[in-house]
Amino acid sequence: MLKGRHLIEPGDLSINEIEEICSLAEQIIVDPVSFQDVCRGKILATLFFEPSTRTRLSFEAAMLHLGGTVEGFADASYTSSSKGETLADTIRVVSSYVDVIAMRSPKEGAALLASKYSTVPVINAGDGGHYHPTQTLTDLLTIRALQGGLENHTIGFCGDLKFGRTVHSLAKAMSRYRNNKFVFISPEELKVPEYITEDILKPAGIEYTTAERLEDVIGDLDILYMTRVQKERFFNEQDYIRLKDSYILDRDKMKLAKQDMIVLHPLPRVNEIAPEVDDDPRAAYFKQVKYGMFARMALMAKLTGCL
Amino acid sequence: MLKGRHLIEPGDLSINEIEEICSLAEQIIVDPVSFQDVCRGKILATLFFEPSTRTRLSFEAAMLHLGGTVEGFADASYTSSSKGETLADTIRVVSSYVDVIAMRSPKEGAALLASKYSTVPVINAGDGGHYHPTQTLTDLLTIRALQGGLENHTIGFCGDLKFGRTVHSLAKAMSRYRNNKFVFISPEELKVPEYITEDILKPAGIEYTTAERLEDVIGDLDILYMTRVQKERFFNEQDYIRLKDSYILDRDKMKLAKQDMIVLHPLPRVNEIAPEVDDDPRAAYFKQVKYGMFARMALMAKLTGCL
Amino acid sequence: MLKGRHLIEPGDLSINEIEEICSLAEQIIVDPVSFQDVCRGKILATLFFEPSTRTRLSFEAAMLHLGGTVEGFADASYTSSSKGETLADTIRVVSSYVDVIAMRSPKEGAALLASKYSTVPVINAGDGGHYHPTQTLTDLLTIRALQGGLENHTIGFCGDLKFGRTVHSLAKAMSRYRNNKFVFISPEELKVPEYITEDILKPAGIEYTTAERLEDVIGDLDILYMTRVQKERFFNEQDYIRLKDSYILDRDKMKLAKQDMIVLHPLPRVNEIAPEVDDDPRAAYFKQVKYGMFARMALMAKLTGCL
Repeated sequence: MLKGRHLIEPGDLSINEIEEICSLAEQIIVDPVSFQDVCRGKILATLFFEPSTRTRLSFEAAMLHLGGTVEGFADASYTSSSKGETLADTIRVVSSYVDVIAMRSPKEGAALLASKYSTVPVINAGDGGHYHPTQTLTDLLTIRALQGGLENHTIGFCGDLKFGRTVHSLAKAMSRYRNNKFVFISPEELKVPEYITEDILKPAGIEYTTAERLEDVIGDLDILYMTRVQKERFFNEQDYIRLKDSYILDRDKMKLAKQDMIVLHPLPRVNEIAPEVDDDPRAAYFKQVKYGMFARMALMAKLTGCL
Repeated sequence: MLKGRHLIEPGDLSINEIEEICSLAEQIIVDPVSFQDVCRGKILATLFFEPSTRTRLSFEAAMLHLGGTVEGFADASYTSSSKGETLADTIRVVSSYVDVIAMRSPKEGAALLASKYSTVPVINAGDGGHYHPTQTLTDLLTIRALQGGLENHTIGFCGDLKFGRTVHSLAKAMSRYRNNKFVFISPEELKVPEYITEDILKPAGIEYTTAERLEDVIGDLDILYMTRVQKERFFNEQDYIRLKDSYILDRDKMKLAKQDMIVLHPLPRVNEIAPEVDDDPRAAYFKQVKYGMFARMALMAKLTGCL
Repeated sequence: MLKGRHLIEPGDLSINEIEEICSLAEQIIVDPVSFQDVCRGKILATLFFEPSTRTRLSFEAAMLHLGGTVEGFADASYTSSSKGETLADTIRVVSSYVDVIAMRSPKEGAALLASKYSTVPVINAGDGGHYHPTQTLTDLLTIRALQGGLENHTIGFCGDLKFGRTVHSLAKAMSRYRNNKFVFISPEELKVPEYITEDILKPAGIEYTTAERLEDVIGDLDILYMTRVQKERFFNEQDYIRLKDSYILDRDKMKLAKQDMIVLHPLPRVNEIAPEVDDDPRAAYFKQVKYGMFARMALMAKLTGCL
């Protein structure tokens, strides 16, 4: 039963609930017009205490395509106007106006705190380096739709695997499905944390390997999940400059990949995927954006109890 | 006849018009679904020349719940883009796009000026320390709904009574109803201005007392209206620090109050009401937020002529 | 066939297409209620990389009056959140959420670039000093509606004719219609560029004159198009101060004009039209604002294929 629930971290959803949401999203994709009045009369509040325009517009488009409406704010100018008010009070107030809240904050745990005081469902749209569960839903829906399910895949994660929240969440999520294999491709300094490999993958009996060079392993992959090297995660400028171009996907590397591999990326990308790759039919990162909107449509239709 | 009218200050509304708006608001509360298409096709412009997210979101939710739509701006970034344009021109332009305007400005008198040039109703959503008539409507609707009417109450106002715009407006508004008594609870430095006591209450024959300590009088009250000590109203930091914690409502003080007293607060609160009071059934300040949205729904449905 | 097309510069529209849009706009003006559900289910994205509240609100009101909805951003705070993303990627993402994009940028050519990557129509809402085609549409619709067509007029352009984008675009647009004459009224330093007079008007056989003083020629005009002296276009402060008050329209000058002349202005005005002129029935600049909204309604209804 998803009605009235909060979504704070990807693990809040059971396998069955993910199935329920993805299945609804796929119905919406096939016939969006049938769903265009489903949330008529419902209001989404987008409370973005830090700007994240892409995510905000995705949530807003999702609600608007369901026939609902939107209000909110796009950056921290709110805080300056709140004159010392606690997040608890802000949420109590806003949740008395609307039917569902999508909240982004630079502070870890902010969405969880908000959910304690909200009278309507709270969706975490990113809380610092912590969780971003609708990105994970997006990734799962994309893989499911384009690769025919969530099982039996070899998934490569490439780039900044140390700080990359989306990688950790997707690895955990995919470890819940049968017979997936992982390949972690990164420099030593940015390798995937042990809490993923030791605490999650090993106990679950998941097979994984690591690699330093993308070209050595790209041929094995069904899914290549590229990530951005985020400058703000680095401790110093020099490390950033030395490493940022290490893992760039280009046409030459794509020649080594399977014909039915797909390339995903949470976006925005800077230069980790060369523009020449965009026209490759295996480049799926812009399709992924659209799946993200459909995933949010299905999620909000369920949490608000409209479907 | 409220259709086409502006609302600049609380006194713009007659007793009968307040009755008309509150009565409609109560109908909406009972059956909101019946009103969800009442303003279909209407546009509200929220012109906030200074941020006030709570008020803005309340107006926007109100219009959205009536089936209307919203556009506008949330802070003074507008002014930077207007390249010397007068407020008169801005209002002439915006009023040619929309059906009703809610306007907030740091300048006293700005809403009144706007109303001279607007071709659609202008609602003052706060003009400096001057007026905020929909807060007063909110307070009246809350008292009416929770205390069974607007007459025969003993109302305590506590905190900053010198600069508190909402207190002055509510005291004036409640002085128009039969048999209300006032208790003003504040430090000497922040006591209610004489223009309220001498020019309004005395000529109207209204009974009032003053007190320095909340605990001395809380037992007499039917309604306790708490206000925030606004740092920006103080002339110096030291006065603020000395006084800000003087009038804090907590569980101990609530033990001295009547069982059917209600606590109101215009929000945001900082620490003038301890969080431990929130669960007390007499704490009505979050209900008041919701009544605020319903009051704005009723008001806009009337001013736009939709009802 | 306007469905699916971009509008980057005024010349993108043929005479027949302008006719089609203006004619639809005039139908909407006569009976707006018949069009209030035409874009139901459609989303407009307003991507304003620099603030232009007037233009943004006009686009948004236009889409809302057609029954569609809106999302977007109002200033460059987006860019700060995009972490190095290219405009191409931003547009690919946003165009996967929405049905039409109105984009404003301080960079010349930005809208054209965006249109290369968008999967939905892009409307240029201003790109630096370059193009602003919906302003030109607005001007044409206003002239057509108020002066009975787009032919046989004597049009005076007054003020900053060197940097004034709207003047150049309107002069080019009006040169496509039969038997119009132009009078360019400006100081020497701000006179209309040769690429207008030599490259466009002369080859088309259009009659034009120049003047230094508005009062010398105002009596000949059917349309007076006033423009603002934009401080930011000047190379130094002193030139601005010396010139800015040179061409002010007041009641005395209006006495010299024809009884059926109309005064237009793209707004905002500063002091180039004295407020005393506002009540003159020939002052059409606020009507022009409303025509702007109707022009955008017609345009978006066509580009989205809703009509």
